[in-house]
Order: sequence, then structure tokens, then C-alpha cells
Amino acid sequence: MSSPEAASGGGPLIPALAVVGVGLIGGSFAAALRQAGAVGEVLGVGRRAGSLEQARRLGLVDRIATLEEAARADLVLVAVPVGATEPTLCALAPHLGPHTIVTDAGSTKSDVVAAARRALGDRVGQFVPGHPIAGSEQSGPAAAFAELYRQRTVILTPLAENPAASVELVRQAWQACGALVRDMSAAEHDTVLASVSHVPHLLAFAFMGQVLSTPDAALRMDLAGSGFRDFTRIAGGSPEMWRDIFLANREAMLAETAAIRQELERLEQTMREGDGSALRERLAAISAARRCWRAEQPESSGTTE
Amino acid sequence: MSSPEAASGGGPLIPALAVVGVGLIGGSFAAALRQAGAVGEVLGVGRRAGSLEQARRLGLVDRIATLEEAARADLVLVAVPVGATEPTLCALAPHLGPHTIVTDAGSTKSDVVAAARRALGDRVGQFVPGHPIAGSEQSGPAAAFAELYRQRTVILTPLAENPAASVELVRQAWQACGALVRDMSAAEHDTVLASVSHVPHLLAFAFMGQVLSTPDAALRMDLAGSGFRDFTRIAGGSPEMWRDIFLANREAMLAETAAIRQELERLEQTMREGDGSALRERLAAISAARRCWRAEQPESSGTTE
Repeated sequence: MSSPEAASGGGPLIPALAVVGVGLIGGSFAAALRQAGAVGEVLGVGRRAGSLEQARRLGLVDRIATLEEAARADLVLVAVPVGATEPTLCALAPHLGPHTIVTDAGSTKSDVVAAARRALGDRVGQFVPGHPIAGSEQSGPAAAFAELYRQRTVILTPLAENPAASVELVRQAWQACGALVRDMSAAEHDTVLASVSHVPHLLAFAFMGQVLSTPDAALRMDLAGSGFRDFTRIAGGSPEMWRDIFLANREAMLAETAAIRQELERLEQTMREGDGSALRERLAAISAARRCWRAEQPESSGTTE
Repeated sequence: MSSPEAASGGGPLIPALAVVGVGLIGGSFAAALRQAGAVGEVLGVGRRAGSLEQARRLGLVDRIATLEEAARADLVLVAVPVGATEPTLCALAPHLGPHTIVTDAGSTKSDVVAAARRALGDRVGQFVPGHPIAGSEQSGPAAAFAELYRQRTVILTPLAENPAASVELVRQAWQACGALVRDMSAAEHDTVLASVSHVPHLLAFAFMGQVLSTPDAALRMDLAGSGFRDFTRIAGGSPEMWRDIFLANREAMLAETAAIRQELERLEQTMREGDGSALRERLAAISAARRCWRAEQPESSGTTE
């Protein structure tokens, strides 16, 4: 595949890329773009010198830079922990190059968009919100690899203020990583991700937490089998990461859990009434839909999404 | 390993075994005992002649018998669908040999015990309730195999009326199949199984059902990843089997779901209050416990338990 080129013709798609937070997400983005011949120079920015040095040694970045230098790159990927997103955008704002495009990788979008509006003001058009649905339990620069985003979905939630060309650049960058890119509104993104990712994690934590709180928890865990194992696997996730997501996306999540409680109540009502016919009918529809669902992801690949 | 012998010394542990319902569960029990040299003659009883004939051809049973003949065997395993348990016990009752021991394989025990008391009256001491925690999505005699119960747990919930020697015979039979046998009360069995098997299935069905009911269900399913996949795998189970279990064990299950709702509410309250510290602490305790849990079962072996 020929290297993606800058819209102006000739040269790589992104002559100067800055990655703020050179961990699994940021490091893999840089590695993938480099492998695709889509970047010129890669700058690495972060808080921990040791980590940045490691990223440089691993060839993920060409040189370590300051946030001020990063703000003048062609594309800046903000791939920092959720709580650091707004401070990072605030720090970039005063130094932002006139043509610099900033994008992110956060698991939630409405809150990031709100933070970007506060941080960038009338320059918010230079921020294209994004979310690559990928990851693994590994973290840090040593975990980064160029193939992370192959066949993965990246969601962009473009703002009304984004020029089409800016959105297109971010789209092409992710496509150069091998990802499938889709657009939707931030609200829709947050609802969908609440539904199929965040709430299952919350439910798994709640269920596991309840079992642990029982007086015969040890006996229960001893007799738990493969159904329990698969249902609760995601309750072994990072407490910090999930705290951040649960707080950031609570509105969308609480809307979903309210609806789930209602569905559970309906099923329980058929149980109380001994209505085997209604119960079987409902279970059959759900079971058939689940069995028909095709998941592209490989079996238990360890992604935390 | 020498063949398990009858307590009277010499000869196999179970000279005459009758299996009522020669499917995966009953057929595998017969196959395992035969492989262990623990049975003399194996009688097969059931409703479908074709199925019984297949069981006989496969060598799972020596001959097809009537329920009346089965009632005079040394040990009778009732391995029929849940709804057929009481009718089977009622049909056995009038013909029950004075020393015949009857046992079952049902996923719930309190209801089976109640049915046995109704069916057998003052001969209920001849019924030893049991539950082998094993299975697969396969069914029928062709799915039966001798190794199904190796290293699996079988729970017995002996009645006060059971002579110790009767319980011991059933225990040794399951041990001859390679299983690990544990005793507990029927109430405890039903609570524990509700907790770690039945309720996760109900929650997975409820969650999946809610997602399917949303207007953008197709988009959600399209973006669902490995977390969703593992969390909802068990929502693909048999609607008939789970209807039966949900109805049979509803009391224990509803007690668990009430507690789970409370745990969920506590987590949601920390989210509403933005109490990141309390939330992280709770998630960390749950996550650590999940990560420490060791499951003997192989990965996604397809057991429906």
C-alpha cells in the first residue's frame, strides 16, 4: 500500500506528529503511522522522563519534546489518562499552531468535548474528538505495537466547528493504522459505549461485589464454574480506569441501568407468576439474538473494552 | 485403580444400575461407571424408543427396560428433564425395591426434595438428592462420554431419612466417575447455585434483552467488543433449560437479585456523588478478588453451568 500523503501532494500525511502520553495507545498510534510511512517526525511528550526515554529507545518517538513544541505539530494525539485531558488541552491552548489539529483517544466523548470547549474557546475547531476502541491489559511504552489498531473501530465525534479537512486528516491517520473509522455525535457515542462496554463492566463489578459480601462467599467462589468465570472476567479490570469512565459517563450509564432494571423486573415477574410460557418466549428471543451475533474480535484477546 | 466393590465384598459396587433418561448426563454416568468396572448390568429407561435404541447401540446401556424393572435395580439415576422428575418418581414409587436407592441429577434441590416427599412418602429415605455440576451444550446419548465427570464437583443434599450407607453408595458411585463429592443442605445448594450460576444467567439475559430493545440496537451490537461478548456468552443458553431453572429456583434467585440491586445502587450512588475515592476503593477490592480467584474449569469449555 502506498504511503498516505499530505493533501498538498508529496510528503507524508503527517509531517510532524506529537503524541502526548506515549503509552500503549499513543505509542501504538505512532508505531502504526511510522510503519505505514504516514509520518515524518514523531515528538513524544509526557510527565515521566523515564517513560519517554524508553519510548525513544524503542523507536516509538524520534525525540522528546515539550508541550509547547508539540502544540505546533501538524497533528497532536492526546493519549493521557482521562483526568489529565483537560489540563493537557489547557496547556496546549496558548501555544497552538494556527493549522495544528489536536485529537484524543478518550473512552468518553461528551465530557472531553466540554473540556475542549473550556480549554480552547473559539479555537475548539482545531480539536477533533476521537475514540479508538482498542486496548489491552498491558500498558506503557513497552506494550505499544504497530498492529494494535488493525481492524479495530475508531469513532470520531466531529464538532460543528471542525473544518471537513481536519476531520479528514484524523480519519486518514486512523485508517493508515488499519482501523475502520465511523462518525457519530458525542451523545450517541457515550450512549452506545455506556450500553455495550461501560455498563457490563459496572454490572460485573456489582455482581462480584455482592457475592464477595455474603457470609459463604468462599463456598460460592469454590463452586463457581465457567459461566461465572466468563460473566465476571471484566470485573478484574483496572479500578482506576473504570472509576474514571464510570464518573465521566455516569449520565449515559445510569440511563441504561434504569432500563436494565426494568427488563430484569419483567423477567422476575414472569418467575414470580410461574409464567413459564412468557418466560421461555423472552429467553428464546434473547438467546437467538445472542447466538446470531458475530463478534469480529478474537476470543478473549484481553481488550479491556 | 481397582474396581469399586459392593459393601458386601466382591462384585461391582452397583450390580444393577438403571438410568432413567439416557442423555448426556445419564449416559455419561453409565459410561463412566462401566469404565471404572463399578457396574454389572445397566438398564436404560426413557420415553423415546429411538433414543434408547441409540443408547443401547452405543453401549451406554445393556438393555432397554421398563420403569417397573428399573425400580428394582440397586441404584436408579433419574436424569430426566426437570419437569419430568416428579412424574418419574411417582411412577417408580409403587414398584420400588426394598433396597433400591434412587438419586437424581437436577440443577435445583429444594423443589426436587419436595417432589420426592410427595411421590415416595415414607419411603423417601430411599431417595438421595444429587446434582453433578457438569454439562455441555451437547445433548442426547451420542453426546455422552465417560470422562464428563472427571474432576467435576457433585453435590449431594442428603435427607435426614437417608441411611448413611445409601448416601455412601451414591457418593462412591460419583467418585468412581472421577468426581469430587460434597454434601450440603438443599437450601444451601439452591442459594449457592442461584448465586454463582443461575443469577448470572438471568442477569446476562436481562442485559442482552435490554440492549436488543433499544432503537439503535444494531449499532450497539456492531460496536460491542470482547467485554460484551464474554459478559453475554451465557445469554445464548437454552431457553427451555433456563426457564425450568429460573422457575424452580426463583426464591433463592430473587433473594440474590435483591442484594445485587442494592450493591449496584451503592456503586451508582458513588457515581452520582462523584465520589471517586469511594468508588475506586470498592472497585479495587472487587477487582483484586476476581483476579485472585482460580477456576479449575478449562477456558470456555462450553459447560452451561
